[in-house]
Amino acid sequence: MDRRSFLRTSAVGGTAAAASALAAPAYAQGNRTLTLVTTWGRGLAGVHDAAQRSADMITAMTDGALTVDLKAAGELVGAFEVFDAVTSGQADMYHGADYYFVGQHPGYAFFTAVPFGMTAQELVNWYYQDGGHELHDELGQIFGLKSFLAGNTGAQAGGWFSKEITGPEDFNGLKFRMPGLGGQALGKLGASVQNIPGGEVYQALSSGAIDGTEWIGPWADEKAGFQEITKIYYTAGFHEPGAGLSLAMNREVFDSLSPAHQKIVEIAAAESHQWNLAQFLANNGAALQRLQSGGVTIREFPDSVWDAFGQASQEVHDENMGDELYKKIYDSAMSSMKSSSEWIKRSSGVYTAQRDRVLG
Amino acid sequence: MDRRSFLRTSAVGGTAAAASALAAPAYAQGNRTLTLVTTWGRGLAGVHDAAQRSADMITAMTDGALTVDLKAAGELVGAFEVFDAVTSGQADMYHGADYYFVGQHPGYAFFTAVPFGMTAQELVNWYYQDGGHELHDELGQIFGLKSFLAGNTGAQAGGWFSKEITGPEDFNGLKFRMPGLGGQALGKLGASVQNIPGGEVYQALSSGAIDGTEWIGPWADEKAGFQEITKIYYTAGFHEPGAGLSLAMNREVFDSLSPAHQKIVEIAAAESHQWNLAQFLANNGAALQRLQSGGVTIREFPDSVWDAFGQASQEVHDENMGDELYKKIYDSAMSSMKSSSEWIKRSSGVYTAQRDRVLG
Repeated sequence: MDRRSFLRTSAVGGTAAAASALAAPAYAQGNRTLTLVTTWGRGLAGVHDAAQRSADMITAMTDGALTVDLKAAGELVGAFEVFDAVTSGQADMYHGADYYFVGQHPGYAFFTAVPFGMTAQELVNWYYQDGGHELHDELGQIFGLKSFLAGNTGAQAGGWFSKEITGPEDFNGLKFRMPGLGGQALGKLGASVQNIPGGEVYQALSSGAIDGTEWIGPWADEKAGFQEITKIYYTAGFHEPGAGLSLAMNREVFDSLSPAHQKIVEIAAAESHQWNLAQFLANNGAALQRLQSGGVTIREFPDSVWDAFGQASQEVHDENMGDELYKKIYDSAMSSMKSSSEWIKRSSGVYTAQRDRVLG
Repeated sequence: MDRRSFLRTSAVGGTAAAASALAAPAYAQGNRTLTLVTTWGRGLAGVHDAAQRSADMITAMTDGALTVDLKAAGELVGAFEVFDAVTSGQADMYHGADYYFVGQHPGYAFFTAVPFGMTAQELVNWYYQDGGHELHDELGQIFGLKSFLAGNTGAQAGGWFSKEITGPEDFNGLKFRMPGLGGQALGKLGASVQNIPGGEVYQALSSGAIDGTEWIGPWADEKAGFQEITKIYYTAGFHEPGAGLSLAMNREVFDSLSPAHQKIVEIAAAESHQWNLAQFLANNGAALQRLQSGGVTIREFPDSVWDAFGQASQEVHDENMGDELYKKIYDSAMSSMKSSSEWIKRSSGVYTAQRDRVLG
């Protein structure tokens, strides 16, 4: 039985069951279980929470008519296998960071973050109002996916290092964990870049398989325990200025849902984006203080390193411009960012600078 | 018949109708119409859109089981009468800026914006993760309301003036439109402050009833047409650094909904917040350019004016601290803002400064 006819059969079965069991609680009538696989180890702070939030809101808003069953990384398929699991129909949906899938298409990077790209707010502006979601859909058409933003970490930290970074030459030969186009840019500085799922980074860093890593920010990094291994932490990074997380559904499954249920999936995902970004940002301040109290020293990359990051990032973008869809997404994103960032700078940028000055 | 027994009767009627009309389309079975009144004139850019978004998403996600009927300002009740209309049961819900209701309780100011308070992102962090929504609920208990954030304008512009502002003394005697605690602060600088609904501001400014006004930001202000009256526009303002808009439902009506429908109202409102903030921010950049091309000159208040804004704002807060709930909300909001703003500055703040420097 192929997946499509299985779906059709189970939907009919559900309706028949509902008609003959009026005394049963509403949530048990004609329910359909959707399997959600994720790129996150179970319980991984913030990122697993975003996946769980989307799952719970879909289940709650449909009164269980769609019951989402979350399988964390390794429970059904491995972290980086979720894309293929959903395109093939082995699972119904995945939650993950789409830049893990730049091998499938480099354009996926934009729906997490690209180096020297958009902050979380700029991403939101582009995605929901300036054509971003439509381009995510255009990518999804290639692979039989219907995708939504469904989480955001905010601007990510530069990461954990075993030694101070004084210039771009310090990246030469450094074994560093960084996914996506940011990792490709670090490679241009001579780093040996590795892509390792979140749940496996602590082990890689503590064993010496890597010299350093970025993960997310103070709260999630503290939970991961990197401060037990090294005390050198760079706060601002160039690689993920506002990392979006995605919920993607097999398109045949999505098309089989009622319009109301499709809308519930869409709005649940969007709400998870806002909720999750707030979760990271509400927790990072206190976590940073705890890390510092525990002996972690906070650093910033010098301008020479930022300059090198900028040049390497542009080289990575340029290498991908031969792909028509990549260029279309790049042009759309950069145009939106340029327009929306100008007002943000003049309004909340000037305001927060004055607030800091006046309140001291 | 009191409101509660009316609701009970109509709900029972709906169920009976559904059971006897299985051939009718799903959206026509047992539907319940909820009347939404707003503080916005019909079509007012951005703010009316946020109300309509919430209405449409509730209707769509419930497949019309809850059909929201939006009545703009003046269509059922006046802009500033919506609060009483919902607490009394005349309407089911309102969408508006809660700082219009500081007369009911000054604590409502925090759920729009307070001077020298939170940016939109800081508000989101506090509201969804740091106790803000619970305090909104505590206020609502007093008035029989269940409230949700359901829109945001972002940081608002300083506003439109008939003459340049060179020092705080220029506010002395100025007839200016500014609602909420920001308006009270301007009053301390000697301004004659007026609170006028959005749909009536153009007329007041063009007739000379007021010398100047703040409204929202470039996009909404351009739509309102203020550039036809004066060309002096201050971009950053102190009074509404991230103005939240609220959806509030009569609590008896909310309590009468099923858990799934309650969740749909909650998530629809939250999604409208993100969607609407993106709408303003995606449109402001281009609008600002058009305003400038049309002869509007962009100004910033000098530091001496920001200092005076800061002092006056603190005086307004201090005057309200005798109210226990106000103080509780103030302490909660300021503590959350202090914590979350620190990381935002170190991460996206440093990042955007470096991006500007490197990309030029």
